[in-house]
Amino acid sequence: MTLPHARFSLNQATIKHASLGEAIGLCVEQGVASIGLWREPVAEAGLGRSVRLLRDSGLRFSSMCRGGFLTDPKDRSAALDENRRAIEETAALAAAGARGSAAVLVMVAGGIPEGSTIAEARARLEEGVAELAPEAEAAGVTLALEPLHPMYASDRAVLSTLGQALDIAERVGSPAVGAVVDAFHVWWDPDVAAQVRRAGAAGRIASYQACDWRTPLPADVLLSRHLPGGGVIDFAALTALVNESGYTGDVEVEVFNAELWAQPYGEALRETWQTFNAHVGVHLS
Amino acid sequence: MTLPHARFSLNQATIKHASLGEAIGLCVEQGVASIGLWREPVAEAGLGRSVRLLRDSGLRFSSMCRGGFLTDPKDRSAALDENRRAIEETAALAAAGARGSAAVLVMVAGGIPEGSTIAEARARLEEGVAELAPEAEAAGVTLALEPLHPMYASDRAVLSTLGQALDIAERVGSPAVGAVVDAFHVWWDPDVAAQVRRAGAAGRIASYQACDWRTPLPADVLLSRHLPGGGVIDFAALTALVNESGYTGDVEVEVFNAELWAQPYGEALRETWQTFNAHVGVHLS
Repeated sequence: MTLPHARFSLNQATIKHASLGEAIGLCVEQGVASIGLWREPVAEAGLGRSVRLLRDSGLRFSSMCRGGFLTDPKDRSAALDENRRAIEETAALAAAGARGSAAVLVMVAGGIPEGSTIAEARARLEEGVAELAPEAEAAGVTLALEPLHPMYASDRAVLSTLGQALDIAERVGSPAVGAVVDAFHVWWDPDVAAQVRRAGAAGRIASYQACDWRTPLPADVLLSRHLPGGGVIDFAALTALVNESGYTGDVEVEVFNAELWAQPYGEALRETWQTFNAHVGVHLS
Repeated sequence: MTLPHARFSLNQATIKHASLGEAIGLCVEQGVASIGLWREPVAEAGLGRSVRLLRDSGLRFSSMCRGGFLTDPKDRSAALDENRRAIEETAALAAAGARGSAAVLVMVAGGIPEGSTIAEARARLEEGVAELAPEAEAAGVTLALEPLHPMYASDRAVLSTLGQALDIAERVGSPAVGAVVDAFHVWWDPDVAAQVRRAGAAGRIASYQACDWRTPLPADVLLSRHLPGGGVIDFAALTALVNESGYTGDVEVEVFNAELWAQPYGEALRETWQTFNAHVGVHLS
């Protein structure tokens, strides 16, 4: 019987409409060893119950999605507090996960607020990360800056490349700041090889995520992700780079796709790890 | 009476459904001094007639759109021949334009063909540019490599950043290879300031184009461009960079937008140069 690759992790958003309990149950049932969680379903279950569900499951915890949204001057203090709560939750869940869990909080930058330039929004992001980094470090949590595809640069994430994330990490200068290598977001970058190597050399790859890019884009470009192998991304080349960089952690599949969300959760999960095995797992060292 | 900025150039695609004669006539009527043309309407009018229309108008010619599409191994020889014809047409039109015309052929790379990786497609682009560069140089034409926004990386242009365009130009090593700085395509790039400076220092800015970015994106992302001021791009900052780089040529507005295309051509042209004056022209040195 084929099993999920040992380093495969289900990002919960891939079966978005399942509850935390359902998602964890399905992973256990199908032999998936790791899960990445989102704050909303964790809040719905309650943090205490989420911690117990995770501990009892024996699953590893691979990341918490998400912190960030640090670009708006109006909401600054509230955004920082929200990130502090996310850091605490990440630490609690990572401690509850099986050995090999990662206390990684994925950080989505936030977009350009009304009346700001992109440069101003980027500066605010960096200030926020610098303010949170010591607290994350004290909690043993890595703030994993996630560059998003440049098509989201205006309304979701002014952090657009891995190089930019690493520049921020270097300037902030904290070991608690890392970066996410999400294939969907970075595959097009002519500089991706150099930047994955740089991230590896600096010990800053906090997460590797795999989902595929295909055109035409759907009307809602947030839902334009596909399972590995469903698009044009060269997972052999990108995964080889990530191997070379020394990253040995779990690899999440995080797909936002209306058709996948409409499938029964168990089927969607099975298809997710099967395509992962075939297109990414085979290349993992 | 307000006139169009002296360096404003109408890219013909902004009033796509006008014939070449209509577009030229409207520019003359409204005091626009320069025009960028597309191959299809030029072919429709015939090259000889296009040359005469342009010469008689007294307009400058700012660029020809477009060559390129060099990534598919199947169509390689046909694509090179098509580019050779485009080089000839560009030279003929630039010679017919008023003093200050630019013999610039805008090059759109082409996407990832079925069965290729992005790396293979990029290598083919570079080979094609290297093959065409001596012919362009002999004809006095600049091949202006146009990085397109990374959301087009799979299906239209594997050339995604200004840095990548300049890397190709340097490796090819011909003075006939330049780059387009199109605000819509490069505004998000965290490295854009450094790369515009690099392009300026190398004398490789062949064209500066201004149109704006706004979300949500329309269903057809090819039509997601807006007139200057209609979106989030910081034209003050980008134009200051282009000034600093030493570029003194015409500045085109090239907007693909279904609503603009539906307007009477004269109104659309007037709105185009008025928004250009207000949001770009004021920053030009």
